[in-house]
Amino acid sequence: MIGDNLKGKNLIAGQWSGAGTEVFTSSNPANGQKATKQFSAGTSQELLLACKSAQEAFHSNDLRDLLRRSELLEAIASEIESLGGELIEAACFETGLPEARILGEKGRTIFQIREFARLMKSGDFLGVNFDQAMPERSPIPKPEIKKINVALGPIAVFSASNFPLAFSTAGGDTASALAAGCPVVVKGHENHLMTNEIVGSAISRAIEKTGFHNGTFSFINGEYSIGKELVMNPIIKGVAFTGSFNGGNALMGYAAQRSEPIPVFCEMGSINPIIISKGTQNEVKDLANTIADSVFLGTGQFCTNPGLLLVEKGEGLSHFLEGVESSLSSKRATPMLSEKIFDGFSKQVSELTGKEPETKNHSSGFFKAISTEEFLGNQIYSEEVFGPFTLAVVYENHNELGDLIRSLKGQLTGSLFIQEDEFDQYRPLVRLFSEKVGRLIFSGVPTGVEVCPSMQHGGPWPSSSDSRFTSVGFDAIQRFLRPLAFQNMPDAFLPSELQSGAINNYPHRLDGKLIS
Amino acid sequence: MIGDNLKGKNLIAGQWSGAGTEVFTSSNPANGQKATKQFSAGTSQELLLACKSAQEAFHSNDLRDLLRRSELLEAIASEIESLGGELIEAACFETGLPEARILGEKGRTIFQIREFARLMKSGDFLGVNFDQAMPERSPIPKPEIKKINVALGPIAVFSASNFPLAFSTAGGDTASALAAGCPVVVKGHENHLMTNEIVGSAISRAIEKTGFHNGTFSFINGEYSIGKELVMNPIIKGVAFTGSFNGGNALMGYAAQRSEPIPVFCEMGSINPIIISKGTQNEVKDLANTIADSVFLGTGQFCTNPGLLLVEKGEGLSHFLEGVESSLSSKRATPMLSEKIFDGFSKQVSELTGKEPETKNHSSGFFKAISTEEFLGNQIYSEEVFGPFTLAVVYENHNELGDLIRSLKGQLTGSLFIQEDEFDQYRPLVRLFSEKVGRLIFSGVPTGVEVCPSMQHGGPWPSSSDSRFTSVGFDAIQRFLRPLAFQNMPDAFLPSELQSGAINNYPHRLDGKLIS
Repeated sequence: MIGDNLKGKNLIAGQWSGAGTEVFTSSNPANGQKATKQFSAGTSQELLLACKSAQEAFHSNDLRDLLRRSELLEAIASEIESLGGELIEAACFETGLPEARILGEKGRTIFQIREFARLMKSGDFLGVNFDQAMPERSPIPKPEIKKINVALGPIAVFSASNFPLAFSTAGGDTASALAAGCPVVVKGHENHLMTNEIVGSAISRAIEKTGFHNGTFSFINGEYSIGKELVMNPIIKGVAFTGSFNGGNALMGYAAQRSEPIPVFCEMGSINPIIISKGTQNEVKDLANTIADSVFLGTGQFCTNPGLLLVEKGEGLSHFLEGVESSLSSKRATPMLSEKIFDGFSKQVSELTGKEPETKNHSSGFFKAISTEEFLGNQIYSEEVFGPFTLAVVYENHNELGDLIRSLKGQLTGSLFIQEDEFDQYRPLVRLFSEKVGRLIFSGVPTGVEVCPSMQHGGPWPSSSDSRFTSVGFDAIQRFLRPLAFQNMPDAFLPSELQSGAINNYPHRLDGKLIS
Repeated sequence: MIGDNLKGKNLIAGQWSGAGTEVFTSSNPANGQKATKQFSAGTSQELLLACKSAQEAFHSNDLRDLLRRSELLEAIASEIESLGGELIEAACFETGLPEARILGEKGRTIFQIREFARLMKSGDFLGVNFDQAMPERSPIPKPEIKKINVALGPIAVFSASNFPLAFSTAGGDTASALAAGCPVVVKGHENHLMTNEIVGSAISRAIEKTGFHNGTFSFINGEYSIGKELVMNPIIKGVAFTGSFNGGNALMGYAAQRSEPIPVFCEMGSINPIIISKGTQNEVKDLANTIADSVFLGTGQFCTNPGLLLVEKGEGLSHFLEGVESSLSSKRATPMLSEKIFDGFSKQVSELTGKEPETKNHSSGFFKAISTEEFLGNQIYSEEVFGPFTLAVVYENHNELGDLIRSLKGQLTGSLFIQEDEFDQYRPLVRLFSEKVGRLIFSGVPTGVEVCPSMQHGGPWPSSSDSRFTSVGFDAIQRFLRPLAFQNMPDAFLPSELQSGAINNYPHRLDGKLIS
């Protein structure tokens, strides 16, 4: 049966290890079928070894070298690229997602890793600064100071339920941490045991082929208890997590119990409000379908899923609302990612709409429309519903829209469907709206997150734990870097990038002036 | 008497307010003289008004405009520049520091503010990114995305005991927060009541002259209880603090009780170790005096005060240690910043050396030398002693030095006195050492923190709460900014810097390539 050839173990410092007696199996949420392969839950001892070995890897020369890191990332990308049907089959089985989606996600995963490999060559992320000495300055001579970003240390990565590849074992968090020069210990998602091992094996082969220290990457299976131990291990210097608010909040709580606080970047999703003006309801063809399709994408299980439509009352209102509702309710039910997610979704959707999905672990789309007053009067409407549901709130005027915007929590994204002749009256509200989001989208839906330098995937709390950072795009690397300044330092003790002559190979600030 | 012309009130949203019944007075630590002027402690209502007004200011157009912010900063600098003898007299009285030091610090304060004003014109800190649309991309067209750093929101600033001007009411934290476009609420240091009001008045005049919203800046006097309320107020979106470990830790604890977590940057000082090789002890003339002078600077009350000397055993050892000891003990006792600081210092220094300062609130320099074994065997030796004391730890070989370095907590700085013929053998240890610090200094002492783009003033825990940020230099502004991405956004809804054409006025990444 599927997975029977796998080891069922944890990858600890280059060794496959199954010391624990507790075992897990995964299952197919689409049909409830259970895999027979048993996976060993990681033990505290295995975790300690993974961390200790990560610490050693952190001190090795390879991880400090940009070109060597680039080699490692390229090798990981190639190993994942060469994974065949086994990976696709395992990921489809464990998530219920269709093959096309998994293939697309595989491509995205490889692309992300290669983009970070390419970034190593530009050195842009190093933030190099060079202030020249002024020995004649009075009353005190100015010393020479150089500054560069260096790796924080070993990073714990928690993989997501909804991206078995792109935000998992070799996903964006792992890629950006390795690119920063940080060893990684992944706590694998418990639903993706086979997928994790297959991808973990690919990383392990890449590490072996490129001759990196075997503590550069480890992964461990287990429940939250092992995740807590990982976050609290003093060797770990940062955490990246993609998942639910409760999960992220728990990790932040564990981190707060450490004697040494560390940065914890949690991307916890949001309801991604869309503002739809009355002008737009009349003007934009197929708007209801476009929005319903975005709501239903991936059976509604994206962190950028639009769960809230703020719709202006106008002539086209009923037509638009009916369009969204009929489009959503006519979707053929597709599988959800797990029984737990399905149960949570069913419960919420039944409270909100009085209806619930008909087939176990599958869902069609759901919809409800309410007034501004109803929305503001009940906190339940502001909660994220993880799944194919969207709530339309009708506003009658801009005062109501202002109140709605002010009531919103922080969001990953916000979208605007507004017509040109309405721009002037909407400008102050859009500004207010922008304070609540990390990415503002015009005339488009929030699903579909580009992997590019200008992407911001992280918004004000509670959509993420620190809105100053992103988990998607080049700048995701900044989560795992800290600046280190060198004063009057001879080349012998400088990182190679700061040594005489080399500095011109990198974008840098010279006496405060940016030189690219 | 000094201060009798002052108002003795809090500056709340542009109004001088003294609603509270509790009062404070300040005193001269050099001679114990108490000022007669009473200052009203801020009340919870005053604090709420300051925060509410800061929120309003945050929504005003002025704070969003780079050139307007530059005007405000210039105006603040000019107002402080034109403050005369009253400021100097008050600051000398309240700190016991000599006039020359206060004059120097005034110059530094003005310089810092002007540097941030200048930064507004370069726009470098905006982190502008522009990824062009690719409408023909298959399978999905790539949208246009632009990204820019925007202000976090109202910031709480806690001023330092040891920098009554440069890290106080109008110090580096306030300047960088205003430069970021964030309104500021300062919790004034309780020892500097007169100084705070004089500087606060200057800021208030600058705000009035430039026509900024009166919530742009408030300051409030009080004890920790009002500081706790400030940190926990939901309007506050970030905190900057310079002070003791216990103070910083308390603020972080309050912040952790918030339902919305916010970034808290605490610069909490450190023992700033200096490594001194045996070669250096023989070669460098006056090394003992240079180091003793750094230890005694400002009566040892700098966050970069070198409190730990790691000294290699060699022929010159006794000569060097005796030199440091005799230089320190022969210093004429100078005032400490407060009775509380003096008492804490006396207690620690008496535990460590068996001696203590002779004159109340004044201290000469103190010194102790111990072995590596003694240092590693007792945690007391790793604690910061805030005042003119340094501890020399003798290492007999590089294994011992390695153990010493590994035992160190995170530090703001680390210094190296090593000779060229020793470089090779020291290289791995210097690397290890660099993991513990934010700034590594060659052949120099840590006191003296340049205000320049390459400065890093913030090291691994517990020297600061987040080693990824600095509280000195241009990049201090990054603590208070978050990236905001705009997808396919028309000019009408874009910040002016991102509108068509304008983007070329700022350093930016175009499709990932840095353009300066």
